[in-house]
Amino acid sequence: MSKPSEVAVLVGSLRKDSINRKLAKALISLAPPSLVPGLVELADLTLFNQDLETNPPASWVRFREAISGADAVLFVTAEYNRSVPGMLKNAIDIGSRPYGHSVWNGKPAAIVSASPGAIGAFGANHHLRQSLVFLNMPVLQQPEAYIGHADKLFGADGGLVDETSRTFLRSFMQAFADWIATQAGH
Amino acid sequence: MSKPSEVAVLVGSLRKDSINRKLAKALISLAPPSLVPGLVELADLTLFNQDLETNPPASWVRFREAISGADAVLFVTAEYNRSVPGMLKNAIDIGSRPYGHSVWNGKPAAIVSASPGAIGAFGANHHLRQSLVFLNMPVLQQPEAYIGHADKLFGADGGLVDETSRTFLRSFMQAFADWIATQAGH
Amino acid sequence: MSKPSEVAVLVGSLRKDSINRKLAKALISLAPPSLVPGLVELADLTLFNQDLETNPPASWVRFREAISGADAVLFVTAEYNRSVPGMLKNAIDIGSRPYGHSVWNGKPAAIVSASPGAIGAFGANHHLRQSLVFLNMPVLQQPEAYIGHADKLFGADGGLVDETSRTFLRSFMQAFADWIATQAGH
Amino acid sequence: MSKPSEVAVLVGSLRKDSINRKLAKALISLAPPSLVPGLVELADLTLFNQDLETNPPASWVRFREAISGADAVLFVTAEYNRSVPGMLKNAIDIGSRPYGHSVWNGKPAAIVSASPGAIGAFGANHHLRQSLVFLNMPVLQQPEAYIGHADKLFGADGGLVDETSRTFLRSFMQAFADWIATQAGH
Repeated sequence: MSKPSEVAVLVGSLRKDSINRKLAKALISLAPPSLVPGLVELADLTLFNQDLETNPPASWVRFREAISGADAVLFVTAEYNRSVPGMLKNAIDIGSRPYGHSVWNGKPAAIVSASPGAIGAFGANHHLRQSLVFLNMPVLQQPEAYIGHADKLFGADGGLVDETSRTFLRSFMQAFADWIATQAGH
Repeated sequence: MSKPSEVAVLVGSLRKDSINRKLAKALISLAPPSLVPGLVELADLTLFNQDLETNPPASWVRFREAISGADAVLFVTAEYNRSVPGMLKNAIDIGSRPYGHSVWNGKPAAIVSASPGAIGAFGANHHLRQSLVFLNMPVLQQPEAYIGHADKLFGADGGLVDETSRTFLRSFMQAFADWIATQAGH
Repeated sequence: MSKPSEVAVLVGSLRKDSINRKLAKALISLAPPSLVPGLVELADLTLFNQDLETNPPASWVRFREAISGADAVLFVTAEYNRSVPGMLKNAIDIGSRPYGHSVWNGKPAAIVSASPGAIGAFGANHHLRQSLVFLNMPVLQQPEAYIGHADKLFGADGGLVDETSRTFLRSFMQAFADWIATQAGH
Repeated sequence: MSKPSEVAVLVGSLRKDSINRKLAKALISLAPPSLVPGLVELADLTLFNQDLETNPPASWVRFREAISGADAVLFVTAEYNRSVPGMLKNAIDIGSRPYGHSVWNGKPAAIVSASPGAIGAFGANHHLRQSLVFLNMPVLQQPEAYIGHADKLFGADGGLVDETSRTFLRSFMQAFADWIATQAGH
């Protein structure tokens, strides 16, 4: 049997009580044994500026190492203004540089997007996919995961209260595990 | 050694002297032996209308059978008005129906887009990718292929005159063959 | 007082009982007096092929004349495979040609998208907006109109049964009328 | 005669020798007298985090005031990973909050995108447009401005060396001035 895959989980929101952070924790807890998912924090990253590459900030170096050490990446993201939150896109930009040293290259990915509204952050989800083409990350296509009314899914303790969602999220993580296994030969 | 993969090649333009048709033929001629690519014609398709499904037009039935019989799909497309040509999108819509019987499901795909201008039909390329998520088609991410100034690539006989392009297109088809082989286990 | 604006209303679905057709009729009935909206039918259009421009099909000529005669355009569209239905995109492509003779140029536009699912055809709505940039059509930004669960809005007679929707759609048409009036000076 | 319009110019890159910064300066110098354009700096903004809104960072407050005081907004942006640079999207997110107090609301906008490659940051340009729908900013549609091979446009002193580009950029600023004037009645 093959070694479990380490999955870097990135949350597209910095808010402490973020729905997407709760959702990321739920997804981590529902992963099959072949995945070892863990949160990679984005809060201490500064804005990407190529001029700083000669002596990159410690936060950039740590972030790049965290992604480099992972086998796959799971994005769990809010939508800000119909697109990817700037703070998540900034992390992606940092990881993609310097030119020729992207830490994203070739890593299988999956995207879950969530919002309190009905649309489930569809806009953020697909804008993120456009970046992943360039970054050469094979992305899980189905099931798509646009989680609408996501604020209703969690109880006071931050745990999932909705059984239908739990079943869907568990099957999503299984599909992601299968996807990672398939791409391993690539 | 495994059986060669049959690749349905779809051209996003109906013009007889279409650049994209020439490009599709070039790509077919440059495919490695593990691929057996062939053009699937779209000219006789009529506009999709769900009311016709009780007795679908012969052109729809033929098209669906052609895609069903293929192992993978290569899209070679122009850009009309910053998006996918309607005639190609219509073919995609026809193939995706009736609900639950999509002929696209699970087939590995790749996209080459081309235009006479500088931008190489980037808009069509990425709009098409958004549809392929829903259609559950794992899509080759790299190399991306936005072929600009594409009218300059072909001679009077319709053949490629540009050696750099020939090399790129050959490596693209090899990357697609590798991609198809990887997805076969999925 | 200025002359009322003629608005060409295009439906992105050919199905006889299409939700979007019902929605278009509702929008027409809720328009303020400054607008004179009317459906322009797309069912008889054939696939765009530039080779036919020397002697264009009668259906293309009629369609181009209908759009040319309008002051503004309202798109009411379904989503097929996370993008604009091919049959609507084909109509857009026909109207945009021959080069230099686009019938869309400069006409103010608005988009309503609707689907039975929760997302309200967001993908179709925004892909369509990308085309309208190229076509030089100033588009109403707010209110956005992504109508989810749209099959629940209409009664057996095809009329709106939902008062909240009626109020929203009426205000949308008023916003569109204001938008058209503002652009008239452009 | 009406008062000149103050235009906030935002650069989507923090690099000191950024092509887009040079381009922004060129656009400022080529504006007609009816526009008073000025750079608004983004370098000191921190990552948006809703938890900080009870006591927002001084950099956010200054930025919001700068945009609030402007009549219109010009975005001059690079493309990072086929989308809007995170640092520019972060500025947009900051300006859009707190809910109900967006500083962008109703301000006419235009977008110029530029890259050293052929595609001219088309992906960033159109992703940005999707956000501007939500932000209710009427955006100039034509001319589109995708400036490819943009590193070739400037001399050692940072000034434009290319006369064709100068003419295009001047006409772009005139079109933007006309657009702002039209929207003033809205």
